Amino acid sequence: MKNEELVERIAREVLQRLRQESEPTGGGSEQVCLTCIACGECVTRRPEAVAALVNAGASRVSSTAGAAPRDETIASLIDHTLLKPDATREDIAKLCDEAVRHGFAAVCVQPCHVRLVAERLDKAGVKTRACTVVGFPQGANRSDVKAVEARKAVGDGAREIDMVMNVGVLKSGDYRYVESDIRGVVEACGRGVVTKVILETGYLSDEEKIKACALAKAAGVDYVKTSTGFGPRGASVEDVQLMRKVVGEDVGVKAAGGIRTAADLRKMVEAGATRIGTSASIKIIGSA
Amino acid sequence: MKNEELVERIAREVLQRLRQESEPTGGGSEQVCLTCIACGECVTRRPEAVAALVNAGASRVSSTAGAAPRDETIASLIDHTLLKPDATREDIAKLCDEAVRHGFAAVCVQPCHVRLVAERLDKAGVKTRACTVVGFPQGANRSDVKAVEARKAVGDGAREIDMVMNVGVLKSGDYRYVESDIRGVVEACGRGVVTKVILETGYLSDEEKIKACALAKAAGVDYVKTSTGFGPRGASVEDVQLMRKVVGEDVGVKAAGGIRTAADLRKMVEAGATRIGTSASIKIIGSA
Repeated sequence: MKNEELVERIAREVLQRLRQESEPTGGGSEQVCLTCIACGECVTRRPEAVAALVNAGASRVSSTAGAAPRDETIASLIDHTLLKPDATREDIAKLCDEAVRHGFAAVCVQPCHVRLVAERLDKAGVKTRACTVVGFPQGANRSDVKAVEARKAVGDGAREIDMVMNVGVLKSGDYRYVESDIRGVVEACGRGVVTKVILETGYLSDEEKIKACALAKAAGVDYVKTSTGFGPRGASVEDVQLMRKVVGEDVGVKAAGGIRTAADLRKMVEAGATRIGTSASIKIIGSA
Repeated sequence: MKNEELVERIAREVLQRLRQESEPTGGGSEQVCLTCIACGECVTRRPEAVAALVNAGASRVSSTAGAAPRDETIASLIDHTLLKPDATREDIAKLCDEAVRHGFAAVCVQPCHVRLVAERLDKAGVKTRACTVVGFPQGANRSDVKAVEARKAVGDGAREIDMVMNVGVLKSGDYRYVESDIRGVVEACGRGVVTKVILETGYLSDEEKIKACALAKAAGVDYVKTSTGFGPRGASVEDVQLMRKVVGEDVGVKAAGGIRTAADLRKMVEAGATRIGTSASIKIIGSA
C-alpha cells in the first residue's frame, strides 16, 4: 500500500463516488481537484486554497514534507495539549502560562475550558491560539451537534478546532455522510479558524486512511490529524507519510498521540507533519 | 470511608454549599432531602419521587440492594451495549435484533445510531428502549452542547440518556456548575425519558464519588452509573455499594465497564446495582 498509483486510485474512487452521490444542492465536491490529489502545484493551480491556509495560520509552520525545522522553530510547531477529563481549571491555567512563556502554536483543551484559555492568552497578548476539540474523542455524535459544538467554541474564543471524524460511518461505506459531517464543522467555524480532522488511524486500514484524507480534503479542512491520544494507538511515521501523500501540500498534517521526545517530533516532521500535538511540550523543547 | 456518618456528612456538606451558592432563580436544591441522604423511607416520605422512578421504567428492575434477581429477570436488567467508535451500522442492526430476541432493558449506542435503533425496536414492537450517551466518554463539553445533544437524541427516539459528568470541574470544586450541567440534560430530556449520570469512578476518590452522587441526585437524575467503559477502569463492587448508600432507594445504580460474566453481574446486583451495562450480554444470559 505504499504504491503511489494505488493511493491516487483509492482517493480518486472515493471522491468520484462522493460526487455521484451528491445531491444537486450539495455543491461541494468542486472544491477539490479530482485530477490532482497530490500534484504539489497548488501554489500556481489553486492559489486561493494556499492563500486560505496561510491566512489560517500556516505561515508559522513548514509546509514542505521532509524539511525538519531548526530548533528555534520547534515551539511554534507544537499544540500544547491537555485533554485529560480530570484536568482542573488550575491545570489549564498553568498550561496557558507555559504556552505564553515558550511560544507554542496553540493551547489545546476540552471545550469547557476554551473561554478560560482564550481570555488568558488574550490578556498575555501572544500569538498562541486557543484550540479545542469537537466530537471528541469518539466522533460518533450527530453531525449537527458537532457543528453546534464548533460554533460555540469559536464563540468562546477558539481559533483552532480539532474535530473527530465518524469512523463507524466511514466503515459503513457512507462517504457522503462522512464528508458532510466534516464540512458542517468547517462551515460552522467560518473564516480565520483553523480546522483539523482527526482520523484516529488506529482504527483504520491503509485504504480507509486514504479515503478519510480524500474526504477531509474535499470537505475543505486545513489539516488532517492522526489520533486523539485516547484511541487504540498514537501517531506513526507511516501514517504521517501516507496522509501527506494523499493530501498533498495545501493541507497540513498534524501528528498527535504518543509524541514524548524531541526525536519523536523530528521523525514526524521528517515524515511530513506540519503540526505536533503533545502534552510533553516542555520536555521536548527542553531537550531539543 | 465505609463509615455511614462520613458518607452523610460529605453529601450534606456538598449539598449545603450548593444551596448557598445557588442564585435565587436556581430553585433546584429543594428537590433533594438534605436531612435524608439514605434513610430508605422515600416510599412514605417522598412518594412522588418513587412514582417518578417507576414511571421512568424502574418497575422492571429490583430496587432493593442485596436482592439478586432470578435468572429469568436478568435480561431485563441489562442495557445491551455497543459504543465502540468503529462499530458499523450493520453491527448496530445486529445488536438490536439480539435485544429484541432476548428482551434486554435497552440498546445503548452512540448518538449517530439512535434513529436506526429506535426505528428497529419500534418495528419489532418490543419494550426494549433505545438508549444513548451524551458528552461521551469524557464529559468535558459545554453544558449547553450536552443539553442540545440530549434533546436531539430524544427527538431521534432515545428513551434513556446516559450522560457523563464533568469530572475536571468537580475536581475544581465548582459544585454548582456540576449540578447545573447535569440538570440541563435532565431538563432537556423531559418526562418519560430515563436519565443516568456516569461518574467515571476510576478518576474519583471516595469523597468525590459521594459528592458526585449527591449532586446527581440533587439534579434529579434517575440513575447514577459507575463508568463509561473507556476510562481508567470499569465498575467495582465497592463503588456500587458506596453509590447505593449515597443515593438511597429512590435513585437507580447502573454498573458498567468490565462486566463480562453472569457472576460479575450477580455481584453487582448484590452490591446494589439495578441496571447493568455490558456488551457481553449474550454470553451472560447464556450462562446464567
